[in-house]
Amino acid sequence: MSVFTTVTEADLQPFLKRYALGTLVELKGIAAGVTNTNYFVTTTHGRYVLTLFETLLADELDYYVKLMAHLAHHGIAVAAPIANFDDDYVDELNGKPTLLVNCLPGMVIENPNVNQCAEVGEMLAQMHQAARSYPGHMDNPRGPHWWTHTAAQVYGFMPPKAAQQLHDEVLYQAEWSRNELPRGVIHADLFRDNVLLNGDHVGGFIDFYYACNDTLLYDVAITLNDWCVTGDGDIDAERARAFLAAYQSVRPFTEAEKQSWPAMLRAGALRFWVSRLYDFHKPASGEMTFAKDPGHFQRVLLRHRERTDFWL
Amino acid sequence: MSVFTTVTEADLQPFLKRYALGTLVELKGIAAGVTNTNYFVTTTHGRYVLTLFETLLADELDYYVKLMAHLAHHGIAVAAPIANFDDDYVDELNGKPTLLVNCLPGMVIENPNVNQCAEVGEMLAQMHQAARSYPGHMDNPRGPHWWTHTAAQVYGFMPPKAAQQLHDEVLYQAEWSRNELPRGVIHADLFRDNVLLNGDHVGGFIDFYYACNDTLLYDVAITLNDWCVTGDGDIDAERARAFLAAYQSVRPFTEAEKQSWPAMLRAGALRFWVSRLYDFHKPASGEMTFAKDPGHFQRVLLRHRERTDFWL
Repeated sequence: MSVFTTVTEADLQPFLKRYALGTLVELKGIAAGVTNTNYFVTTTHGRYVLTLFETLLADELDYYVKLMAHLAHHGIAVAAPIANFDDDYVDELNGKPTLLVNCLPGMVIENPNVNQCAEVGEMLAQMHQAARSYPGHMDNPRGPHWWTHTAAQVYGFMPPKAAQQLHDEVLYQAEWSRNELPRGVIHADLFRDNVLLNGDHVGGFIDFYYACNDTLLYDVAITLNDWCVTGDGDIDAERARAFLAAYQSVRPFTEAEKQSWPAMLRAGALRFWVSRLYDFHKPASGEMTFAKDPGHFQRVLLRHRERTDFWL
Repeated sequence: MSVFTTVTEADLQPFLKRYALGTLVELKGIAAGVTNTNYFVTTTHGRYVLTLFETLLADELDYYVKLMAHLAHHGIAVAAPIANFDDDYVDELNGKPTLLVNCLPGMVIENPNVNQCAEVGEMLAQMHQAARSYPGHMDNPRGPHWWTHTAAQVYGFMPPKAAQQLHDEVLYQAEWSRNELPRGVIHADLFRDNVLLNGDHVGGFIDFYYACNDTLLYDVAITLNDWCVTGDGDIDAERARAFLAAYQSVRPFTEAEKQSWPAMLRAGALRFWVSRLYDFHKPASGEMTFAKDPGHFQRVLLRHRERTDFWL
């Protein structure tokens, strides 16, 4: 359940007066998400999602919210932030920064088919292209520096063999240069649960709160590692080929990207292996955690190490 | 038929490469509108409307297009302009300035019911509120100065009695002051054929190319004169009351507006009587005209003059 801050109709009615969205018809908590409070807000004009940010502060939201607006006005399927009469996207309710966005069509799909993987690949490439003109900048807090530092805090909790594998990977990733790779704005967390699918079409990319500036190829690797994965951590070649072909139909890889692709697939898996290890072994006290199996990304990574075909 | 500039699929495919909208599925001319060329463009991502501007130049479009984008990001039901990869809304195709917008749900309704008039009234008020923070400015080219000047060019074509009625009204409208009335951005042409209705709900306001800065009450009068009119130029009291109550539920009239309301209803009718007279008697040579009956707004105006109840 992800309603941490309760909102009543009596709270919302005066709040909605600051927006051009008509009057309240229905308010309903959304039982998804682990960080923020979300409600469906139905008004006489339509259906919206209201988010109350439980940890991010209003000025920290600026990069993400303006990015969502930028992508929306380029026609990318994202939840478009709605501005209030003061022309601000971020407002405040019950002491928390808030955001109202359009409600997107579609649902989360756990077992995507080949066409759906292709649609996600195409939209991801279009998102990378559309974000080229976005002026905001945020360094990726989850890059090599972060995983090197974070891995050091969990080695001691791990079985020796796994700790050795992790350490080897951290060293391997430190050895190659990303300097030649095209950079831009990346979603950085485009897992299946952050995409709404409307049939085979992308209804919307959501949850941009890990978005940052980094190499585009890192985003491709992170996305493929989730969308094209099998239950045992292997990659389904048919989905992977469809995903990559659709991505490259919009933005073909550069020669440097093709060279770096095998290493980057491993980097994408390492990043989530490390964050899951950390959440598992060092949960923040009092935090509601839904710790996910770190072993999954260990398996994804080890399979990438053995791989000879990379679907390009 | 309103395709003045032909666009082929071969023209459109490279054009679409400048947008994050997927690839072309279907292209279809739209037989509506008398000034610009419009096409439905269906891509792998969705359905859009492409407009080629036949008379307006790219820099003249700036006020209108940014206004549409401003209103869209406040949640007002308008066609949202889509930016290309250079972050421009206005692009160029076959030598004409172009705009791509989202395709809106709904259709034009000739005989609106009471609920539909109320929904339009509410959305109009919300549009006025949302536009308060719009920084652009454009004087109304169709105000008292314009109609005084334009009427003088058509008196000679008119039967003496009608010419006298028109002249009387021009003099009457010069006698009262609009200085106390709230001003802002107005649509200025929100007739039934510029609103798409989705059932009883507003799917979208369209055709913002008369929008300008003027008194808000002028917009209310122009809109009521069309939405609540009967075939003989009278106003249907039930629709008028619903329209005005819904408008005022969002933005109640000021005392000055209540005082000016009868005169403003006449001003709204005068403006279209004059433009239709001009189009009828002095059609631009070679222009495709669909001259509309000037007598309709003469009747609307004369009925307003006799009226004692103004539905407030």
